[in-house]
Amino acid sequence: MGKDKGDKPSYQLKVPKGTKDWQGTDMVIRDKIFSSITDVFKRHGAVTIDTPVFELKEILGGKYGEDSKLIYDLADQGGELCSLRYDLTVPFARWLAMNSSIQNIKRYHIAKVYRRDQPAMTKGRMREFYQCDFDIAGTYDAMLPDAEIIRITCEIFQALGWEGRYTIKMNHRKILDGIFEVCGVPKDKLRTISSAVDKLDKAPWTEVRREMTEEKGLDEEVADRIGEYVVQKGGRELLERLQADAKLSGNEAGKAGLEDMNKLFDYLETFEVLDKISFDMSLARGLDYYTGVIYEVVTEGSAGQSSEGQAAGKRESKPKKQPSNVDGEEDRSNDPTVGVGSVAAGGRYDNLVSMFSGKQQIPCVGISFGVDRIFSITKQRLAADKSAAPIRTNEVDVYVMAFGGKGFEGLLKERMQIAKRLWDAGVKAEFSWKVKPKLPAQFKSAEVGGVPLAIILGDEEIAQGKCKVKEMGLPEGHPEKDGVLIDLAKLEEEVKQRLSKLGGAATLADSVNGMSLDEAAKEVAKTG
Amino acid sequence: MGKDKGDKPSYQLKVPKGTKDWQGTDMVIRDKIFSSITDVFKRHGAVTIDTPVFELKEILGGKYGEDSKLIYDLADQGGELCSLRYDLTVPFARWLAMNSSIQNIKRYHIAKVYRRDQPAMTKGRMREFYQCDFDIAGTYDAMLPDAEIIRITCEIFQALGWEGRYTIKMNHRKILDGIFEVCGVPKDKLRTISSAVDKLDKAPWTEVRREMTEEKGLDEEVADRIGEYVVQKGGRELLERLQADAKLSGNEAGKAGLEDMNKLFDYLETFEVLDKISFDMSLARGLDYYTGVIYEVVTEGSAGQSSEGQAAGKRESKPKKQPSNVDGEEDRSNDPTVGVGSVAAGGRYDNLVSMFSGKQQIPCVGISFGVDRIFSITKQRLAADKSAAPIRTNEVDVYVMAFGGKGFEGLLKERMQIAKRLWDAGVKAEFSWKVKPKLPAQFKSAEVGGVPLAIILGDEEIAQGKCKVKEMGLPEGHPEKDGVLIDLAKLEEEVKQRLSKLGGAATLADSVNGMSLDEAAKEVAKTG
Repeated sequence: MGKDKGDKPSYQLKVPKGTKDWQGTDMVIRDKIFSSITDVFKRHGAVTIDTPVFELKEILGGKYGEDSKLIYDLADQGGELCSLRYDLTVPFARWLAMNSSIQNIKRYHIAKVYRRDQPAMTKGRMREFYQCDFDIAGTYDAMLPDAEIIRITCEIFQALGWEGRYTIKMNHRKILDGIFEVCGVPKDKLRTISSAVDKLDKAPWTEVRREMTEEKGLDEEVADRIGEYVVQKGGRELLERLQADAKLSGNEAGKAGLEDMNKLFDYLETFEVLDKISFDMSLARGLDYYTGVIYEVVTEGSAGQSSEGQAAGKRESKPKKQPSNVDGEEDRSNDPTVGVGSVAAGGRYDNLVSMFSGKQQIPCVGISFGVDRIFSITKQRLAADKSAAPIRTNEVDVYVMAFGGKGFEGLLKERMQIAKRLWDAGVKAEFSWKVKPKLPAQFKSAEVGGVPLAIILGDEEIAQGKCKVKEMGLPEGHPEKDGVLIDLAKLEEEVKQRLSKLGGAATLADSVNGMSLDEAAKEVAKTG
Repeated sequence: MGKDKGDKPSYQLKVPKGTKDWQGTDMVIRDKIFSSITDVFKRHGAVTIDTPVFELKEILGGKYGEDSKLIYDLADQGGELCSLRYDLTVPFARWLAMNSSIQNIKRYHIAKVYRRDQPAMTKGRMREFYQCDFDIAGTYDAMLPDAEIIRITCEIFQALGWEGRYTIKMNHRKILDGIFEVCGVPKDKLRTISSAVDKLDKAPWTEVRREMTEEKGLDEEVADRIGEYVVQKGGRELLERLQADAKLSGNEAGKAGLEDMNKLFDYLETFEVLDKISFDMSLARGLDYYTGVIYEVVTEGSAGQSSEGQAAGKRESKPKKQPSNVDGEEDRSNDPTVGVGSVAAGGRYDNLVSMFSGKQQIPCVGISFGVDRIFSITKQRLAADKSAAPIRTNEVDVYVMAFGGKGFEGLLKERMQIAKRLWDAGVKAEFSWKVKPKLPAQFKSAEVGGVPLAIILGDEEIAQGKCKVKEMGLPEGHPEKDGVLIDLAKLEEEVKQRLSKLGGAATLADSVNGMSLDEAAKEVAKTG
């Protein structure tokens, strides 16, 4: 034990850079986001797995391109060399490769991942942050799992109360490949041109064209032909236009991509979510391993003005600042060029598992939700909502208190007995941990905590086998303002009845758990 | 991207030593344990916090004695030096010291901790493992938070179905101090004698006495006087005997400890959990920082024959094998001298926060549940229970299928529409991701998954605005064995009614979530 009491330590008391403690209402909002998302996954038959926070260093090697420099390594303390996971996708592929008896699965995984990136804390860009991944592995008929993932995504944002406030940008790797081929991009420039195209959400075409021709040496004519395609955005009509384009639909990759997309659009129409899609031909996404449809979910204010991005979902391999000794730099929360980025992203990756297994190839499609970003946006929206009252941090339904006149001994034993009976009945209850608490202090505890119901014990009432039950926060003049006498014998029954009657007021915390945050905010405003 | 498809990587595909992937029914059982525990915490008004997986190295320094060598460090990649957390108590104390506005809190935290220890995987002794901590911080009247922690512990083991199968061993640091003082242990030998006493659960008194006298140089008479005290175990009557002991109750520390214990026993009697307690005078627990009551929960088979122990709860500072290059050694799961250890442990620690804050002292009392050990024991008990049917891994309630004769096109669109309606209604539903699935394959999917209800679509029925609903697993001869025709318009209503009627069978997964595992196993046996 290094320090004695009262001997303040010499080091600064803080958490490591880019990490944070979660507490209070932040924790409640975050848990609500997690449970909303999990509910949707379960509705679609998903199971969860949990992998270690660190993997063998070799497992992560060669998976993240130049972002590998952002990987946290464990110190070499003898034994295996390990690194903290950078995402949840590579561990999932490693797990599939190790469990060859599992040929198909719908799995979700909500867990922390680690990147030695430059943080912007209030925008949810951190070094330790949560990802929430959903992936479907297995061989199925074309585009059916893909369609269900998009449907799941829409159900999740609906559950989060984002209806009408988000867009799913979508494209297909094979369509992009087809475009580059028919436009005449040389094979060795495919990657770099694709990554230039991906910048079109933040930069105008003229700038991207300049990068392609001046920096990357692409023929101007080729660039112009690409430009005609990739600036296009739309829906079904864009797809039809491309299918009518003899050049693109004459290309093998292009044709396959367009057919996939057509099938997917049919399925999304049946699932009634096609209106959420923006077919965006500039969406390329950085990672090599995508082989089919790719998508990114954006919301108001989530698009940054910078081209740097800590991907919400699958990694982007866009150029980043050198992270060497980044600890000296400032948090970038106030940098207007840093956006929250996409709030979810993913796509089909049919070959990743075989990078580990060497033999078996398990086709996969997935999405990763940037829950810390979703949290940041949700918190801002709640803060901006003037009608939203404070969210409760605990869920206590009953505060057991006592009062008395001269010679009052505190009725501790009786308060404990009542609390015990309530706990036995499954009721969330508290009492003061003072032998002789004052009534105002007990009321204050209940009020501060937002507890909806008080049980009030007094010597006289107990002698008659009774106690008082009082709904907190009743207005002056209400007939039950001072509480109602009930039989002690019927305590549990009375309490449960009143709690279920109170509904909203009794279960503010439940409401944050059981309804969308928008609804919750309204409910809080109504009853608080 | 280092490897191409089909090119098997040269390294071994595995997780780091002492870590594991969680999946399948293990995951379901573990989640059930977590949710049972969390429910009890919330019933007592607890909130949760979440701290980073790694802390500044300095924060952990000097807190774990010689166990510090088991701490995982992150590599020095420029910037701050960090280590993976070793437990959840020190981060909690650091958090309290950093948030001086918080003077009291009941917080729980379920998260992974890290120790470079020698693993014994099947006994729940791992390098990455879960702890589940509950602590009460704040100044209250004596022994009231302490009593509530014991009450919470009993509620948790009841919820886990362990009623009658566990014991809470309890002692008090001040009573031990008093005993050592009145027996004449020199001040400089207090720690080492205390740690010898702590071994009495695994070794006979003669052996411990020999260690005290021969190894540690204690006078034989002093050892014998200690022996008279510490071999005693019991309940209220033992406490009364000690209170009647003029020597011990004449000692300041001893008197204070006995008074605390008396008060605590009163409170535990009121909470109706005193019968779970074994007042065990040999319980000492290793850590310096305990200042009051200390406890450990043991269950059948949890006591090891070895004195080495990876504490379920607070750390033990007993000697351990050198961990240097332990990666070469074997897993110790089959070593009979290695027990699961205690399944929960804790105590009062009033001075830890001030080690960080330097000034303010926040008294704390807490308990840590070794959930991986609880999981291991639960799994063994379930496996031994012949009546327990397999636990479902997902929660799907309805499988939407189709059949047809010649020219059957698969009714994909209709299956998707029905699934969508069910999802919209909050029903957990799946359908085959094949355009033209065969009926037996669809039935098999539903059966293998344990799905309780099938919706069966056919061209003819659809033309009449109907579909079939069928309860899976009905016996031959049951009037509804082949399903029942219902109006498509009333689909959601019919499904929900049948699911709520099916109860147990419809919600096997729910039952694992909503009742004790013992009950769940019985339920599975009954309905499966």
